[in-house]
Amino acid sequence: MDDISEKKLLEKAKIPEKNALIMHKFYRGKLQVLPKCQIKDYNDFGIWYSPGVAAPCREIHKNKERVYDYTNKWNFVAVVSDGSRVLGLGNIGAEASLPVMEGKSILFKFLGGVDAFPLSIGGKEELSEEQIINFVKLIQPTFGGINLEDISKPKCFHVLDKLRADPDVNIPVWHDDQQGTASVTLAGLINALKIVGKKKSEVKIVFNGIGASNFAISRLLRQDGFDLEKAIFVDSKGILYRGRKDLEDPTNYKREVALISNKENISGNCGKALEGADVLISLSVPGPNTIKKEWISRMANDSIVFACANPIPEIFPWDAKEAGARIAATGRSDFPNQVNNSLGFPGIFRGALDVRAKTITDEMCIAAAHALADIVNEVEGCLVDNCILPTMEYEDLFIREAVAVGLKAIEQGVARLKFSEEELTTKAKNMIDNSQAELKLLMKEKMIPEFKDYIK
Amino acid sequence: MDDISEKKLLEKAKIPEKNALIMHKFYRGKLQVLPKCQIKDYNDFGIWYSPGVAAPCREIHKNKERVYDYTNKWNFVAVVSDGSRVLGLGNIGAEASLPVMEGKSILFKFLGGVDAFPLSIGGKEELSEEQIINFVKLIQPTFGGINLEDISKPKCFHVLDKLRADPDVNIPVWHDDQQGTASVTLAGLINALKIVGKKKSEVKIVFNGIGASNFAISRLLRQDGFDLEKAIFVDSKGILYRGRKDLEDPTNYKREVALISNKENISGNCGKALEGADVLISLSVPGPNTIKKEWISRMANDSIVFACANPIPEIFPWDAKEAGARIAATGRSDFPNQVNNSLGFPGIFRGALDVRAKTITDEMCIAAAHALADIVNEVEGCLVDNCILPTMEYEDLFIREAVAVGLKAIEQGVARLKFSEEELTTKAKNMIDNSQAELKLLMKEKMIPEFKDYIK
Repeated sequence: MDDISEKKLLEKAKIPEKNALIMHKFYRGKLQVLPKCQIKDYNDFGIWYSPGVAAPCREIHKNKERVYDYTNKWNFVAVVSDGSRVLGLGNIGAEASLPVMEGKSILFKFLGGVDAFPLSIGGKEELSEEQIINFVKLIQPTFGGINLEDISKPKCFHVLDKLRADPDVNIPVWHDDQQGTASVTLAGLINALKIVGKKKSEVKIVFNGIGASNFAISRLLRQDGFDLEKAIFVDSKGILYRGRKDLEDPTNYKREVALISNKENISGNCGKALEGADVLISLSVPGPNTIKKEWISRMANDSIVFACANPIPEIFPWDAKEAGARIAATGRSDFPNQVNNSLGFPGIFRGALDVRAKTITDEMCIAAAHALADIVNEVEGCLVDNCILPTMEYEDLFIREAVAVGLKAIEQGVARLKFSEEELTTKAKNMIDNSQAELKLLMKEKMIPEFKDYIK
Repeated sequence: MDDISEKKLLEKAKIPEKNALIMHKFYRGKLQVLPKCQIKDYNDFGIWYSPGVAAPCREIHKNKERVYDYTNKWNFVAVVSDGSRVLGLGNIGAEASLPVMEGKSILFKFLGGVDAFPLSIGGKEELSEEQIINFVKLIQPTFGGINLEDISKPKCFHVLDKLRADPDVNIPVWHDDQQGTASVTLAGLINALKIVGKKKSEVKIVFNGIGASNFAISRLLRQDGFDLEKAIFVDSKGILYRGRKDLEDPTNYKREVALISNKENISGNCGKALEGADVLISLSVPGPNTIKKEWISRMANDSIVFACANPIPEIFPWDAKEAGARIAATGRSDFPNQVNNSLGFPGIFRGALDVRAKTITDEMCIAAAHALADIVNEVEGCLVDNCILPTMEYEDLFIREAVAVGLKAIEQGVARLKFSEEELTTKAKNMIDNSQAELKLLMKEKMIPEFKDYIK
């Protein structure tokens, strides 16, 4: 891979950005809030507002749970961010994070039929862990679920863990950079291991970069039966080993993984860690030379490389393969095997909302990952190196994920409602089909203007 | 008026409630969140989400004000309530207030083209003034305006006053039970005075009930040139006068009006206050006998009676008229002269948002009130006793209000954008027409199901 192609790829990555600027300005935002109830004439406001509305208010006052019957709480999800770590952009603040949260909300609606609303929150100073936790607890009455997004670490760990453990929080709280990425990565890894014929309990995994995503991926993998004693974690300072100075600090969140991994307690750089490794999961610094080819060549046979930094992976997939990797995955949509969060959260929330789940357990994430992994095999007829994950276009993908999540929630006793597999399928399908049909109708009738006219 | 008719009226008020329960359950909420940008295929997500979205994020990070160009902030309004004083229902809590906030949001969209989102907030204990203030400040990055709703007094006064005075708050904060009611009441009073030929600086007004609404009405009337020295305020203990025990408490919010009104410092009940009064504005306890006929008969000639308690006014309009009142207004949609908040906020916010106003000043409310008052005369050709206020059906009502508010904001230097009257008219018209057209389209194509099928 020479410099020219690299440059081309970087340029290519910039094209969507150029267009995005024009198109965002044209639409001035991506979301709208519309009635979903019939309004034939002004008299109907007597039903939907004063005086009629007093009746559902009274019913909910008598029994809080009825808020799920008389309002849209059951399908409202808040996309909450303080903008302290946005995409690859860093701590850009609440206002600058709003385009992302609006974007996430349209994905929620289009792919999952979920009414998501962006809440980019902030003040003069960066928000504390407590401020975000209190904020989420304040808005709990309105929402059926909370999607935390783009919050810096280690704040995001504490916010998520505390909210999930809080007995007063009885709606799912989700941090997509943790659970979402973990679910989709697990799905890809399940299929990759199937292809190379290795067992999850036996593989040696190297986690390069210990941000929110890799931290959460390792947790979920452990939950699904991967053996983390064999794993090695690497950060910018090198391998995590017991005795490393900075890991003695009890407030360092990396201690958790340092204590359970690296059984042989080796030290060194990422190259050292990769010796004999079966899997590399890298979510660190954009490449293309963050991971060296010679490092990959030290891995075991049939090695699997997830190089998921954006916009340029830590090592290009062709370089990884040339160095001996069997399967390579990245975060890019223009390369095969894209590890894409959008494959997860719309279906997972759809399922959680449809059974009114009180939380999204790790087991529900794992169920979603397996549904996601299985669909490739079923649709394609077989698994191949260059197709370990589905793309968003796979039909029924989000429906099947939703059903898997809903059934698991029912099984685990965290669902308020119980449905059969068939009922869950119908519910999810209707919600998703309807939201896409509404959008298509608004586009067809030119209620949503075409940006082409604007650009030319 | 005999008991049977009163019973009938009470029964009649219950019909919308019965239907509302069925219809709310059918739709399970009244709102949805939809994309307003074009999504032709999955590739478009590369524009609206990663990687394209990074570009507008960067632009906003460079200059925060650009959040108005690249997101929907310019048209987002939060409808915030802690449910501590909902309609006539009292402190029913956040969940039970959500149907009202959703209802308000559909009024915002349908009448004003505003993308309003309900945020019913709460916790284990009733929220403090500080908690609500902090909450509003946290969500400021996302919204172009804040509509506070159904918050108990005196909390609501402090929340509104402090947020309006806060130099860090640079979007309009509005409490509809204060400014909204005040604007519409002022509009009605302007026309009523025109009909009876009395001057605002000369009339004696009695304010019965000193809740959020009457407190705010008196403030706005004073601002518009009414002479409050001549006014008398009455609460459940009787007339407010200097020397009344409870008014010596400096934390009692009623001191403010007690000190400037009741020049002759009389005491007594509401009947005493009404002697020789030109106007009664009552927002107190539902009637029909809260205000007695004999009290009305003590008022001056051509007296004006606003009896706005819901669902039953403090005195029925026919009783007020029999006792000598010339003009009677109530809060009911089935009586003439309805003082209806929905005539105000959709147009006022439309105007404030279109010029990106930093606040909604009292002068902007007064401008809206005059626009509202003028339209009756213009459309009807003359003013009559039974038509002092327009109904929601009046064409262009909200557009004209928006234009008046926008122009006043520009004049006062609180607008970030400047437009001509013609431009403001076009803007408001497009926004309102488009939101209604979208809804009609979704209804026509049965994307919004008909509840009739459900009821039968």
